[in-house]
Amino acid sequence: MQKYVIAGMLHSFLTYINEQSLFTPTDKIVLAVSGGKDSVVLLDLFREAKFNFTVAHCNFQLRGKDSDQDAEFVKQLCASHGIPFRATAFPTQTFARNHKLSIEMAARQLRYEWFEALRKELDYQYIATAHHLNDSIETILLNLTKGTGISGLRGILAKKGYIIRPLLFASRADIENYVAEKQLAWREDSSNASNDYQRNLLRNEVVPLLKKINPNLEHTFARNIERIQAIESNFQKNLSEFKKAISQEANDALFLKIEVIQNWQSGAYFLEETLKEFGFNYFQSKEIYRSLCKSSGKAFHSGTHTLTKDREYLIITPKEETTFEELLIDKGTETLDYYGLQLQISNTSIEDWQNYLNTARNSDILWVDADTLNYPLRIRPWQEGDWFIPLGMKGKKKISDFLVDKKVPLHLKKKTLLLCSDDDIVWVIGQRTDERFKVTQGTKQILRIHAMRTANEFAG
Amino acid sequence: MQKYVIAGMLHSFLTYINEQSLFTPTDKIVLAVSGGKDSVVLLDLFREAKFNFTVAHCNFQLRGKDSDQDAEFVKQLCASHGIPFRATAFPTQTFARNHKLSIEMAARQLRYEWFEALRKELDYQYIATAHHLNDSIETILLNLTKGTGISGLRGILAKKGYIIRPLLFASRADIENYVAEKQLAWREDSSNASNDYQRNLLRNEVVPLLKKINPNLEHTFARNIERIQAIESNFQKNLSEFKKAISQEANDALFLKIEVIQNWQSGAYFLEETLKEFGFNYFQSKEIYRSLCKSSGKAFHSGTHTLTKDREYLIITPKEETTFEELLIDKGTETLDYYGLQLQISNTSIEDWQNYLNTARNSDILWVDADTLNYPLRIRPWQEGDWFIPLGMKGKKKISDFLVDKKVPLHLKKKTLLLCSDDDIVWVIGQRTDERFKVTQGTKQILRIHAMRTANEFAG
Repeated sequence: MQKYVIAGMLHSFLTYINEQSLFTPTDKIVLAVSGGKDSVVLLDLFREAKFNFTVAHCNFQLRGKDSDQDAEFVKQLCASHGIPFRATAFPTQTFARNHKLSIEMAARQLRYEWFEALRKELDYQYIATAHHLNDSIETILLNLTKGTGISGLRGILAKKGYIIRPLLFASRADIENYVAEKQLAWREDSSNASNDYQRNLLRNEVVPLLKKINPNLEHTFARNIERIQAIESNFQKNLSEFKKAISQEANDALFLKIEVIQNWQSGAYFLEETLKEFGFNYFQSKEIYRSLCKSSGKAFHSGTHTLTKDREYLIITPKEETTFEELLIDKGTETLDYYGLQLQISNTSIEDWQNYLNTARNSDILWVDADTLNYPLRIRPWQEGDWFIPLGMKGKKKISDFLVDKKVPLHLKKKTLLLCSDDDIVWVIGQRTDERFKVTQGTKQILRIHAMRTANEFAG
Repeated sequence: MQKYVIAGMLHSFLTYINEQSLFTPTDKIVLAVSGGKDSVVLLDLFREAKFNFTVAHCNFQLRGKDSDQDAEFVKQLCASHGIPFRATAFPTQTFARNHKLSIEMAARQLRYEWFEALRKELDYQYIATAHHLNDSIETILLNLTKGTGISGLRGILAKKGYIIRPLLFASRADIENYVAEKQLAWREDSSNASNDYQRNLLRNEVVPLLKKINPNLEHTFARNIERIQAIESNFQKNLSEFKKAISQEANDALFLKIEVIQNWQSGAYFLEETLKEFGFNYFQSKEIYRSLCKSSGKAFHSGTHTLTKDREYLIITPKEETTFEELLIDKGTETLDYYGLQLQISNTSIEDWQNYLNTARNSDILWVDADTLNYPLRIRPWQEGDWFIPLGMKGKKKISDFLVDKKVPLHLKKKTLLLCSDDDIVWVIGQRTDERFKVTQGTKQILRIHAMRTANEFAG
């Protein structure tokens, strides 16, 4: 029994990595290890498979000594096997309070940011987390309960950007059997202790009821998921074809050809998915679709766009930005919110800046020479006629040309925001710093501004 | 409040019928009414909307007096409103026992067969049942739990053939509010008293838990369902395109072009859906897909077909029918099972036969002159060289030509079974009677045989 469980798990693990093309044997991987059962098993499988990896542990400092002991446990575990180990600690509660996030959201953001920075620093290919099949099942049930299209039914993705989940093939029971058979030591997982009421309800009450109907629930879901993922990717392909077939862009407006929409099978749903990007919701999309066969030229408004109907086209135009007023930023401001965008402003050291240069680059973070700025700074939407000197260039460039070169899509163009000092543009927010304000050899004080989207309004 | 609930329900009902194109105001409808809350509400809405309909009630005789009182209740309800009423009674338990069906399956089969016969007799367009949104939600959760592709996630269809479900927009709570506000009388629904453990578990335990997460669960699901149905019908369209693109038929074999499968997005899943028809299961399909890029010419076997791989094609051929042995049928046999097909054999009256001629025609039922038969009868698969005299014709016809004319697809052709008397073919089962055995003016005794598929083996 023992050998079977252990060999079977390793075999399934390698098969899954191969089938899902998660990574190749030469890839190097940052392995997220909390010290809980799931991540201890993932670590053990990585070790057995002799993959190239560094263990990364986050101490969220949420449970006092216990948190420190978790970190120590993972450190010792790595030391005993000669596995490279990195750790960090976060002031999670302060961060959550400052950014008005739930503890869970704050931990999530801190964790993934650090993993990504570490991956870049080490020049590794991937970050692996220990999400398993039951996590995925809970996600599907949660999405279904809260409302979803096809993408919410496919579960947790095995690969998304740099993140991979090589344990998604395994059920919670598989993991527990493996831990028991191999007699692995582990620590009570801090994420399980989290207060996620909805997920716990699904895990502890709903799933056990469903297992009364089908004791083999997890493996059935693995097959459901495989099928739904196939259908979802097929649908995404069709959706791209639809968008291409209906769209014409002209004069800062998007024209959607009504005849094509009407003749497309399930055109109503394809239209809904298309209009979502422009901020129109389910009910508006339904009403817009119904209006296609009517003669009236009613206008519809989302938070960001206006849609009008003429004879042959639906015409989508960005809303005039009159609602976006200029906001002044006093010296010493630490955080500020502006139409779904949150800025975190801090003075930082030359060392931090050099460290940043050596590791991650992130266009959502601005580093400027603090002495070049005149307060109050101002934040406002981009206007026709604006220009700046893009970092690394010598001449002026019109913002409009800059956006065209960057191929920023129409519905995001008008949402571009600027940070200004007097009348000069310091930063095309989230996109490019101005040459005149950059940090140089002579810089004495550095101001760091991190722009984060807090709502969909600016997400496009 | 009262007026709002009532008017709101009627409005939603009419909107739903219109949006789903269920029927037009001139259509005539058989309305299935058990006397329970759901069907009483459906009846009331049909009455308020002044549609053309006849109420049909089935007495399954499962609960003694209660069943009779249900029938009487519905009869009186119709009489008081001047609504045309039809009723029938079934010996459900005997039927279930004789046909080895669960009580629930037996009731279902009897019910839908009678509704359809009634619809044809009255020359009506549709049969309406009172399934509601919560029934659909339970179906989705049940399918998800037991394993499904996209088609199990779309819930109960509002329209399928002649069956329509105009109450699918309403939640159980909507129905209960309407009953309360209109003070409608109703009888405890016999279907609710059924012993369907799985459905009751979902209804009484799982759904209430999900409603703790989302109290508006039903309306959220209505939107999920709308989206999934759009995706499903889009997928079915793509699947047809796929089948067309990969298939070539020749010499009784089907050739599937490997290159096209490999280049098709999500080709593995499209192949699985295609091979399902030929009896290949999930695991076989996966293995077949994996074999596409290998050079070996391994063969795969389903219950009915063999799949082999050559350089450019997957080749599917029907299996030689050596496994299907001839079965002898003695006089007096009432039921018999033969490779997924169940035959019910009974002596019947001239009146039954005349009644049948006046109402429904069903190619799954054979009526023959009993005196023309020589026992033991025999049942066997069709073979090359077989011929018969199709009912209504004067000359012989080869079975092979008959199947070609009827455009029976390849994978079903070899599954065609024959009922024989001595060496003569009496019935191409489920397809056509032989002229020599037909019921005539001089017939004294009639044998009736009903062929029902009990498993997928013969379903194709």
